[in-house]
Amino acid sequence: MLQAALAAGTAERRSVFEVFTRRLPEGRRYGVVAGTGRVLDAVENFRFDADVLGFLRERGIVDEPTLEWLASYRFSGDVWGYPEGEVYFPGSPILRVEGSFAECVLLETVILSILNHDSAIAAAASRMASAAGDRPLIEMGARRTHELAAVAASRAAYIGGFATTSDLAAGFRYGIPTVGTSAHAFTLLHDRERDAFQAQVDSLGRGTTLLVDTYDVAEAVRTAVEVAGTDLGAVRIDSGDLLLVAHRVRQQLDELGATRTKIVVTSDLDEYAIASLAAAPVDAYGVGTQLVTGSGHPTCSMVYKLVARAGSTDARAPLEPVAKRSRGGKTSIGGRKWAARRLDDRGAAEAEVIGTGPVPDELVDRLLLVELVKGGQVLAREPLDVVRDRHSSARAGLPLSATQLSRGEPVLPTEYL
Amino acid sequence: MLQAALAAGTAERRSVFEVFTRRLPEGRRYGVVAGTGRVLDAVENFRFDADVLGFLRERGIVDEPTLEWLASYRFSGDVWGYPEGEVYFPGSPILRVEGSFAECVLLETVILSILNHDSAIAAAASRMASAAGDRPLIEMGARRTHELAAVAASRAAYIGGFATTSDLAAGFRYGIPTVGTSAHAFTLLHDRERDAFQAQVDSLGRGTTLLVDTYDVAEAVRTAVEVAGTDLGAVRIDSGDLLLVAHRVRQQLDELGATRTKIVVTSDLDEYAIASLAAAPVDAYGVGTQLVTGSGHPTCSMVYKLVARAGSTDARAPLEPVAKRSRGGKTSIGGRKWAARRLDDRGAAEAEVIGTGPVPDELVDRLLLVELVKGGQVLAREPLDVVRDRHSSARAGLPLSATQLSRGEPVLPTEYL
Repeated sequence: MLQAALAAGTAERRSVFEVFTRRLPEGRRYGVVAGTGRVLDAVENFRFDADVLGFLRERGIVDEPTLEWLASYRFSGDVWGYPEGEVYFPGSPILRVEGSFAECVLLETVILSILNHDSAIAAAASRMASAAGDRPLIEMGARRTHELAAVAASRAAYIGGFATTSDLAAGFRYGIPTVGTSAHAFTLLHDRERDAFQAQVDSLGRGTTLLVDTYDVAEAVRTAVEVAGTDLGAVRIDSGDLLLVAHRVRQQLDELGATRTKIVVTSDLDEYAIASLAAAPVDAYGVGTQLVTGSGHPTCSMVYKLVARAGSTDARAPLEPVAKRSRGGKTSIGGRKWAARRLDDRGAAEAEVIGTGPVPDELVDRLLLVELVKGGQVLAREPLDVVRDRHSSARAGLPLSATQLSRGEPVLPTEYL
Repeated sequence: MLQAALAAGTAERRSVFEVFTRRLPEGRRYGVVAGTGRVLDAVENFRFDADVLGFLRERGIVDEPTLEWLASYRFSGDVWGYPEGEVYFPGSPILRVEGSFAECVLLETVILSILNHDSAIAAAASRMASAAGDRPLIEMGARRTHELAAVAASRAAYIGGFATTSDLAAGFRYGIPTVGTSAHAFTLLHDRERDAFQAQVDSLGRGTTLLVDTYDVAEAVRTAVEVAGTDLGAVRIDSGDLLLVAHRVRQQLDELGATRTKIVVTSDLDEYAIASLAAAPVDAYGVGTQLVTGSGHPTCSMVYKLVARAGSTDARAPLEPVAKRSRGGKTSIGGRKWAARRLDDRGAAEAEVIGTGPVPDELVDRLLLVELVKGGQVLAREPLDVVRDRHSSARAGLPLSATQLSRGEPVLPTEYL
């Protein structure tokens, strides 16, 4: 596309691309914008180095004028978008990229990869966080997804409401609080379970979390309290009927005087399993597979569409709306869009309003897109805690049915003006 | 675990970890080992640099003796495994890592991340390749998964039988053949569809693939042949009822004399949609979302379990089998294992045989694990085409029901000796 547009003289036409999704995953009531911060890094650092240019030349993938153009590539356009952590609905223009066709079209894949992945994880995390209420969630899914997707997943999980991660690379890269755990291998390494517990307590203190389901749970709990005393931080249960076992372990811990020792449960949890444990004496949940795979929806269906472009390369040429028009369902709405969240009389969100014309007065204060990149310069970088808090507030501003786990329609209708 | 084991004097006990899965994804008939080559790179390059050590120190995550140990970390053990591209079944020990507990336990997450991700994609790719028969499959899923998971997914798809990828980064990194396509944006950029087609043909030649569903398909096909002539390489259809549209477009192309012009279809294809198009006049399939998300199963449930370890750090201490024994379903079988694929009289595979004792004579020639790393040195690196061919042969050696798309049991039973 780039090579042909450069040759045809259309590559420099001013263009507007928008990222949106036509639908939420089936039954989901809201989406979560995540990955925006990573998109800003990717846009700023998008380059073609000598090795890559050499590959493109050697394979004959693009011609010499295109190679020259790529060698000096720097994105110099503008990006607006929903702030990271916001919620979104079908049609929400969560990112808008504006510049020459050539500089914008090259960013399609990296922008969609990041937003589709991170938003899918954050949406699952947000549902799990709702289900967990005040109990902390630990991200433990690194081993169930690509090794670097795992680091991004930790970041998205934190935005969605997780408290900590067991992925030290995510702690290193993004400053997310890290927690550890021991595996069955650690117990099996030692001659007796007691030796393993003793080694762990000696090294990490009584506040540590001991894994109690390698052999017999009741015996392990007894041994754990004998070794660590009643100040033992927590025990972890990773198998069996968690509801039943948690009740038994709580009773046993209380009888042993370890009334402040917490119970952490893990084992293929998802938002439904978390909700089903609401009445169980559980203090924290560790979630792996179902988090990093988006709890059934590992990707979003976000697309990156050209919605307007100039009819010539003249800098004064007006932008003209464009859209695919064939039959078959994949039509889009042309034109550069604004979006606002309309509130009802009590201040709760009642509609996602999207338009291409003038913004009605009553919505001017409720516009959702903010400026992120101006002339190629990233304007806004945010600490992850700000993003996490924003998500929490945005979710709280939705109608109550947003946090129902059952399948349903998007909790806000999308209205086009 | 590392810190506690170092302090307890158990970290240097010789240990054997095995990677296996307790079950295939529901209804799947075989698994595909993929990612082994990437695991070898990861094991060889696993290091803790100054920045990472500084992070671990500053956060107080591990103590000074552990930091010192990490600073000089190099894996010096042995790795055996199923050759990449082989098929596997529940219980198959697809990778075995042997060395000190400390050096092996650190590799758990990266090994599982790679194998769980890559094998999930390869399994989906293999089913799609069976469904596609002789027609080539194009990997087009980069935008639907994490930006680097996408590159690994291209590699896994190629192993599973895909012919090409649209991800240039995968071509650069792994030498996978690349193909391009144009998007609706390219058509919309131009004043008329004809101008877009002309620009593309002028730049890329008549052999290019023109996207014909931006406006009206029949009109686009007519324009495409007018612009490119009857030597036009291919047209792509990305929406609508693909079966119906492909028939119409084939008829139209033939009537226009473009009898050799091919038809490429894309649009949320999975193995079932591909199979349903078997009788349609389609020449190639482009697959995105469903490939990179494992067609419903984005991860495997592989685990990395300690199966044997010495009872002391004495180099002559014998290995003792170990296994989790609690109730709750997650039990494992202790001991270092061999695996073989038993054939029936006609040379077709009939069972996956796994044992911990002596290998029966008739299975000696059918052993599956090969030596991959010896004393920390990677022994075997393979071109991706060798791996791809191995998978094709391994799948062909299974009972015919292996390639049925319908849900069923694993096509080989697992037998334990």
